Amino acid sequence: MSNDTSTWFTEQHDYSGSSIGFRVTQRLHSEQSPFQLIEIYDTTDWGKLMVIDGCMMVTTRDNFFYHEMMSHPALFTHANPKRVVIIGGGDCGTLREVLRHNSVESAIQVEIDERVTRLAEKYFPELCESNGDSRAQLLFIDGIKWMAECASESLDVIIIDSTDPIGPAEGLFNAAFYQSCLKALKPDGIVVQQSESPLAHLPLLKDIRSAMTTAGFASLRTLCFPQPCYPSGWWSATLARKRGDLDKFRENDAVTKSFATQYYNLDTHKAALAQPEFLKRAFAQP
Amino acid sequence: MSNDTSTWFTEQHDYSGSSIGFRVTQRLHSEQSPFQLIEIYDTTDWGKLMVIDGCMMVTTRDNFFYHEMMSHPALFTHANPKRVVIIGGGDCGTLREVLRHNSVESAIQVEIDERVTRLAEKYFPELCESNGDSRAQLLFIDGIKWMAECASESLDVIIIDSTDPIGPAEGLFNAAFYQSCLKALKPDGIVVQQSESPLAHLPLLKDIRSAMTTAGFASLRTLCFPQPCYPSGWWSATLARKRGDLDKFRENDAVTKSFATQYYNLDTHKAALAQPEFLKRAFAQP
Repeated sequence: MSNDTSTWFTEQHDYSGSSIGFRVTQRLHSEQSPFQLIEIYDTTDWGKLMVIDGCMMVTTRDNFFYHEMMSHPALFTHANPKRVVIIGGGDCGTLREVLRHNSVESAIQVEIDERVTRLAEKYFPELCESNGDSRAQLLFIDGIKWMAECASESLDVIIIDSTDPIGPAEGLFNAAFYQSCLKALKPDGIVVQQSESPLAHLPLLKDIRSAMTTAGFASLRTLCFPQPCYPSGWWSATLARKRGDLDKFRENDAVTKSFATQYYNLDTHKAALAQPEFLKRAFAQP
Repeated sequence: MSNDTSTWFTEQHDYSGSSIGFRVTQRLHSEQSPFQLIEIYDTTDWGKLMVIDGCMMVTTRDNFFYHEMMSHPALFTHANPKRVVIIGGGDCGTLREVLRHNSVESAIQVEIDERVTRLAEKYFPELCESNGDSRAQLLFIDGIKWMAECASESLDVIIIDSTDPIGPAEGLFNAAFYQSCLKALKPDGIVVQQSESPLAHLPLLKDIRSAMTTAGFASLRTLCFPQPCYPSGWWSATLARKRGDLDKFRENDAVTKSFATQYYNLDTHKAALAQPEFLKRAFAQP
């Protein structure tokens, strides 16, 4: 324990009775958008920190785990991902990773809160460096409505890069929304949902999987990876597919990829597919 | 962020500028042993929590990651581990996991602070359930001295289950100690050292690997795994071998093992061997 008198930003996570904090030097920005309270802090060791409604969203230093694992496993599992949609993802880090794939012809980000993106452009410019890519389209509208109206069988990959299932993102975690996704996906399409901590949120994770099955997805896989700024420091992304499985991926392409990553590679993709014993047991139960 | 006024125990980790906390209901015990301040808390969601000199050591709920990953990968990598020594490990959780292996004929725990074990027996009885095993021997003496005097080529596996490299454990992280380990190991012996967070302590982790190489170990592998109660929520164990490699292990035996685990299995063992891109790059540099 430290005796220093520095200021710390701490997220006390009621649901799991655990907290994570970072030592901060100053609060750079705070505003109540039409949807949520957005704060930006400067930290001593983690770069900038974005907080939404008191929950840590990204830090400069550790966002690579999440953004890489929300995009590359799904895109290397799909045979030829051309049309990708990101629901949420306002910090634009997932969009940047998606656009690293040369096969992608169109990447649409549907974020309800434009202020998240405008603040990311200012405080996390590296995450926004691909926003001007001609293949990118940034929409600031309701993702649930957009998906319900999306043309049938028009998308290859849908990435649900949302906040927690309370507040504006609540409607992104139920069977009705997943049915919209299913309809919008081409027959070999894949949806990815950020699915909380495998340890701290296991009941929520099981609810997500159950809602995906109810919606009609044929196969599911939950990938686990480190994420220091989220509760328990361990996070997951759940992939669901209309048909076909999610265990195999384009391994050669993952090895010969033309872009650099910090966490993702062939081995960490396989590692993320590994299911710890307690998770196997939990997923085997209804 | 929570508005509740509950009490939280928080470890503010100066080195990384990050903190982890748990909501606690009461402090059950506090004592200054001859070596360190030992506290036990009861938490709302994580069972009991042991804290040494302000640093979280174990919780009832999440210690399985660490104890399983400090023992099973090394023991399933060794062809036939019979004689195992644990340096530190006073909570006895690693000893319990080691004794699950039928091949083990002798497991000696060399912990400098008997009070850690006595308090574990009271507050973490499940971790101590194998302390009475006829193959187990609990010594409360200095592990550095014990190892220096250990008969040459007498051990199969050495597990260095220590606190951080400050305080009583400092001498367990240098080439002189690793040389004692090397001498005490049989030619196919393996040493395992808890090696801090791959993200938050990367310079320390590189120092550990460097000291092991200086001591004369032929091969090294750093395994990564989740550990919510330690800084960054992500932890590592570094294996070193006198000769031979550390990539292959007794896969069939890992699959058909006679005991239950919560995290460890064939797939999570392989997953722990996966090296994230940033770690590959860091280890490639001198």
